[in-house]
Parts: sequence; structure tokens; C-alpha cells
Amino acid sequence: MSAGEAPDGDPRDPAGRGTGAETQGEAADEVLSRAFLSRVVEPGDETGGRWLREYGVAEVVRRLRDGGQPLPGVSGARWEGLRARAGRADPGRDLALARAAGVRFLCPGGPEWPAQLDDLGDARPLGLWVRGRASLRMWALRSVAVVGARACTEYGAHMAATLGSGLAEHGWVVASGGAYGVDGAAHRGALAAGGATIAVLACGVDRPYPRGHVQLIDRIAEQGLVIGELPPGDHPTPSRFILRNRVIAALTRGTVVVEAACRSGSLVTARAAQRLGRFTMGVPGPATSALSAGVHDLLRGEAVLVTDAAEVVELVGDIGQLAPARRGPVLPRDLLEPAARQVLAALPGHRAAPPGEIARGAQTTQDEAIARLYELRALGYVERHGDGWKLTRQAMISVRGGRSPC
Amino acid sequence: MSAGEAPDGDPRDPAGRGTGAETQGEAADEVLSRAFLSRVVEPGDETGGRWLREYGVAEVVRRLRDGGQPLPGVSGARWEGLRARAGRADPGRDLALARAAGVRFLCPGGPEWPAQLDDLGDARPLGLWVRGRASLRMWALRSVAVVGARACTEYGAHMAATLGSGLAEHGWVVASGGAYGVDGAAHRGALAAGGATIAVLACGVDRPYPRGHVQLIDRIAEQGLVIGELPPGDHPTPSRFILRNRVIAALTRGTVVVEAACRSGSLVTARAAQRLGRFTMGVPGPATSALSAGVHDLLRGEAVLVTDAAEVVELVGDIGQLAPARRGPVLPRDLLEPAARQVLAALPGHRAAPPGEIARGAQTTQDEAIARLYELRALGYVERHGDGWKLTRQAMISVRGGRSPC
Repeated sequence: MSAGEAPDGDPRDPAGRGTGAETQGEAADEVLSRAFLSRVVEPGDETGGRWLREYGVAEVVRRLRDGGQPLPGVSGARWEGLRARAGRADPGRDLALARAAGVRFLCPGGPEWPAQLDDLGDARPLGLWVRGRASLRMWALRSVAVVGARACTEYGAHMAATLGSGLAEHGWVVASGGAYGVDGAAHRGALAAGGATIAVLACGVDRPYPRGHVQLIDRIAEQGLVIGELPPGDHPTPSRFILRNRVIAALTRGTVVVEAACRSGSLVTARAAQRLGRFTMGVPGPATSALSAGVHDLLRGEAVLVTDAAEVVELVGDIGQLAPARRGPVLPRDLLEPAARQVLAALPGHRAAPPGEIARGAQTTQDEAIARLYELRALGYVERHGDGWKLTRQAMISVRGGRSPC
Repeated sequence: MSAGEAPDGDPRDPAGRGTGAETQGEAADEVLSRAFLSRVVEPGDETGGRWLREYGVAEVVRRLRDGGQPLPGVSGARWEGLRARAGRADPGRDLALARAAGVRFLCPGGPEWPAQLDDLGDARPLGLWVRGRASLRMWALRSVAVVGARACTEYGAHMAATLGSGLAEHGWVVASGGAYGVDGAAHRGALAAGGATIAVLACGVDRPYPRGHVQLIDRIAEQGLVIGELPPGDHPTPSRFILRNRVIAALTRGTVVVEAACRSGSLVTARAAQRLGRFTMGVPGPATSALSAGVHDLLRGEAVLVTDAAEVVELVGDIGQLAPARRGPVLPRDLLEPAARQVLAALPGHRAAPPGEIARGAQTTQDEAIARLYELRALGYVERHGDGWKLTRQAMISVRGGRSPC
């Protein structure tokens, strides 16, 4: 597992303009530069995003590190603060630490970068630190966020777990914030159903927060993905929690709020989802419950009332542009990664098989099989039916006919 | 209390066309004719409504009673069935029975007739049998329906009772169907708060159904109003229950559904309210509760999510055309009924007084005072504040200035 993924050209980055072909060295520079920036600039800082857009990564890094004319839009004191951070930054060491901890770093425009994050404009993450074996880009294509109160009720925990399992059983990836309460229940529901789940943290992905969820988050890193904007070892802060929510909203097709009091952070996620044109959904609860009051406020607005996973899937699965599965596989089988091809080959011809059986057939672990199966799901090769997986009709036709499935 | 209220001219009834002034005798004929029809034609039968519109009351009665050419739009067998009913009808006896039981009969267009029922078109009630001392027309101006499942949960009963009390405390009249479960809880909530409530029955108002609610409905007849389309002694049937719901929907400014399974009759009321352009509201509940599933379906459509009485009032109180209170009293004090004037005179100048104190001041009963207070509320003279009543600012100005308040 590499710690730095080379970007394949970022159309929003003027540093790449007119160069024609990027060299390996330029890509490595970009990785180092963005790893540096992720240590210096706070997540979601739109001033930083504007600098990148206007000056290019290399120039922003140069000014922050080597001094010279301050970049515009910040006070002198703030600029000095950034310069001080820059002086302490050591991206080479961060990337090495990450590599040692099985963490990779994605740059915008890279092959594993989820393009929908670009909808955040200048607030787009500078890069993402990722633990886990699946392709974030593939998984995010068919993902839904399930978020809510940390101090949820038993009802909230039950609904979050049921939605988590149900979405996983429908072949959808469950994203959440890894927190206590609703988030944890949603992740656990997906894991328990042999499903795919993404935890988006507000701290370094190598030091999970909250501490009581270390085991859960480690388990997610095995069977799912743990991602974040903060470099190794970095701590969460209140503003990082809030700004993390925009990543959850942008990454997914829609956000379901399970329980939320009136000023809950999960309402921030829901409103961000709304602004980004994603589906916003809410699970109703008793009118007497303060922990449902925030959800009810949402439901009085644009949010759609949902009571189970099937309703969520019916809603978010309805748009075609991100749903290649409905039109059959979009990538020729020959272009699949070898690991994915191996798992695909292990699927039986005409019936559903549980991931354990598929893993044995592909001579790999069940976690590895799950990572590939949800990628193949996003590509339109396979479908999940309850606990098992089977080839899609289109994939079977292409196999029987010997034709390329695209 | 009279058993027959003369209509003051019905613009939809061609029997009155061109006569200029109606005589007392004609009005009495209309009462007798419509009492007769309420025994013969089923509530909500649009064919009957069409006959009245096209032939006039007198001619429809004549053909049904004396025979001759059948009226169009019904089979021969059905016509014979109606004729047989007509042969057994004795409206004079019905009106006498009603009078003895303290029941009056309202005709469309009469001074106590709620004009909003005319929105039902050909399905408008032929007349209404009414028990209770308040003016149905006045009360209905500021009324909200609270309906829901008979076999409700404790949560549903709690919400219905809380809404019933809360609406009463905001000076609104609570209408419902007198049934077990949500309906009963809503009525009781309003009664307990010294409020106004209307039970719309699917049977004769002199023989309350369900039997277990005889005491409750008798109490409503004392402090509120019990109304229905069926003549004395008539029984409820499944179709009468369903068609009763259109009256609840049309009478009120909006309908709140508290708990309803997916095929619940209260959804019929809500959809009728929607069709009639009234507000439709739903109280959310746990997503796991089958008794909230029908409400959640409504909330996915046009219905507005509400969790307490203040939200209901904010919504339904928002339209001006039926809310004279916002513009001050609409009827000069001199034109008020003596009983209402007496109660108005008993209100203290600058503070709220409980209905008991007002009743003592007006030398009347508390039930009588409540009847008049909600009428005066509809006319813009008084406001309810918690448990007490006070003069509106406009009413005080008009009293102080000695001017007519309109």
C-alpha cells in the first residue's frame, strides 16, 4: 500500500496548465505539497482553497514555507500563525508515518479521488488520508450517510443500526462520522451485515476518536474505510468536527438524519447535503422527544421522511448519472484490478453466494472480498441479494457471450 | 331551543329564485322538507345533491313522496328503495322528537349554517342535527380537526389530549369524530382545558355511538356541540363513518392526524381536507410504529409535520379571510345576541379572567359562558390567555371610545 497517490491531472489546478504531460516527479511533488498543506491549513478553509486556485499548489507552498509576500485575505497575525505551522511541518515524515500505519494519501484528481468532493469548491479537502483496502472513489459512488445524535435514545440506536444493515444488504455503502450514538450504530449495523462502511474522522486516521471507538474504527479500517483530512496524529477540535460534516455530505448521494436535537451537528451535515444538491432525509420520531425535534425541523423543510432502508434506496437510487449498475458494467473486465477480477471470477454462475464462500473461491480474506464486491457493485458487475452476492444480468450476458461487458 | 332553523335564503337552491322575500311558511316548509330528505337520502349522496340543485327541494320531496317520474341517475331498484324510505318518513315527528331531546335542525343558508360546508358541492349535508348551546357557525370559524386511530397507542392518546388542550388554550375549537382512541382523547383534552369541542357523529345525535362514549358525548353536548347528518335514532354504518369524515374536513380550517395505520379512516378525513384546500397536518411517531405509518405517508405528501398546538395554530391562523379577530370585532356590539352581550359585559377591563368568574359575573353557567366566549372569540371581541379570557385590544378601544367596534 503506497502512502502517496499521484493525481492524474487536476483541471482546477492552474499549476498543471499547459505542461502537456506530468512527470512522475511532478506528481510526487504534488503529493508532498498537499501533505504539507494538510498540516498547515485547516480543513474547509476557503481562503486556502482560493489560494490554490489562484496561485497553484507550488507557489502557495513556497510562500508559506519560504516567506515572501503574504498571500491575500488573511490578517498579518493569521499569516504568521500559518507560517509558524509551516515551519514545523515535515510532510516527508508524515507520509512515512502514514505508510507505516497502512495509511495512504489521496490528492484531488487522483485515480482514487471521489470526484463529487469537487462540488465543495474552495472548501474541497486539500487531500484525504485513507485507511482500508477498498477504492474510496468506487465505494463513494453508491454511498449514503447515516448520522445523528451522540447521546441518542435506544430508538435512535435501533433505527441507525437497522438502516446501516438494510443499506448494506441493498448493496449500498454506509458513511458516518465514527462518533458515539447514531454514527456508531450505523457503522456497526453495516459491519454486522457483512457490508461496506466509511468512517469520516475529524482527526488523524491513525489516532481514532473517540477513544471508546478505537476497536470499532480499527474494525472499520479492516472491513471498510477510515478517512479524514487531518494528517497523522492530529487532534479533533470543535470546528474540525463541524467542517468534517461537509465531507460526509459531499461524499455521499444523500444524508439520513436519525435523531438530532435542535442544534445538533448532524443538522449541519444535512444542510450541507441540501446545499450540495444531495438528498436529505430524516427519520421521524415521537413528537415528545427532544432528540427528534431537529429531525422534525428538517422534515418541515426540504428533507424527505424515511422509515427504512428500502425507502432510502428508492430515493437515492433514482438518479441515473451516478448509477452505472442500471446500465450494466461500465469498465471492461480486462481493465479491472487483478484482485477485483479474482473475486469476480469466484462468483457462481446463476445463484447468490455469501462473501465467505466467494472469499474462499478467490483465495483471499472475507474483508478483502467485501472491499472488492462493493467496488464491483459500483461498476455494475454484481448485486447484493440479502446475505449473498450474484452476477448482474448484464455481467452474465457478457460472460456467456464472451463479449466485453461495456 | 327550536328544532328547526329557518334558512335565510340559499343561493344554491332554485326553489327560492325570483320570490324576492321568503315567507315564514316557506322557511318552515324548507325545514320539514330537508328533515324529510335527511331520513330518505344517505349523507354525502351526490345524486341527491344534484337533484336538489336541478329540481329544487320541493319538487324532489314531491317526487319521492308522491311518486311520478323517477328522478334521473339512479336505477329503478334504488329509486324504489328511496320511495319506500320516503313512505316511512315522518319529518314532523322527527323534528318533535329532536325538540324534546334538545336537538335543533339547521338548513343550508340558515343563520347558524357554517358556510364552509358549501365547499362540498353536491355532497353538502342536506341539513345538520345539532345538540349544544353554542353557534355552530361561529365556532366552526376557528376550528381544527384532530383525528386518528381508534386503537391508538398511549403515545397517540397523549398527543391527541395535549393537542386538544393546547388548541383550546389558544382559543381554537377542537372538532373530531367522537370515536374511541385519538378522537376521544382530543375531545377530552379540550373539555379538560375548559375549551370548545365539536363531535361530528355518523348517527343520530340523540343516540351517541360508540356506547362507551355516551357520557363523554353527553358532556360534549353540555360544554360543546354534538352534530350529525342523520335524523334522530338513526344508526351508524361503515359508509356513514367514511362519509361523516368529509363533514369534519369541510367544517374546519385544517385536519391534524395523530396516529393512523395505512388504511385508517382518518386518512380519508385528511385527504378530503386536502381536496377542499384545508390545511392537512400530521404528528410524526416512531418509524417502527404501524400506527404512525399512515401519518408518515401523509407527511411524505402535502401534509405539514406538527408536534404541538402552537405549530398548528401558527399554520391555520395564518390566513386572513376567516380570521376577523386579527382585524378587530366584525359585528357591532348592539347586534350580538343578548346572552353573548351579557358574557362580554362580565369580562374585566384589563386582565384575563377564568370562565368560572365570567360566568358568575354574567349570572349564568360555566358551560353557557364557554359557549359564548368561543363565539365572541370568533367575532374578535375576546382572546384566550392560558386558562383565562380577556378583551382584545380592539374591543377595549371600542368600549373606551364608546364607538361601535366594527
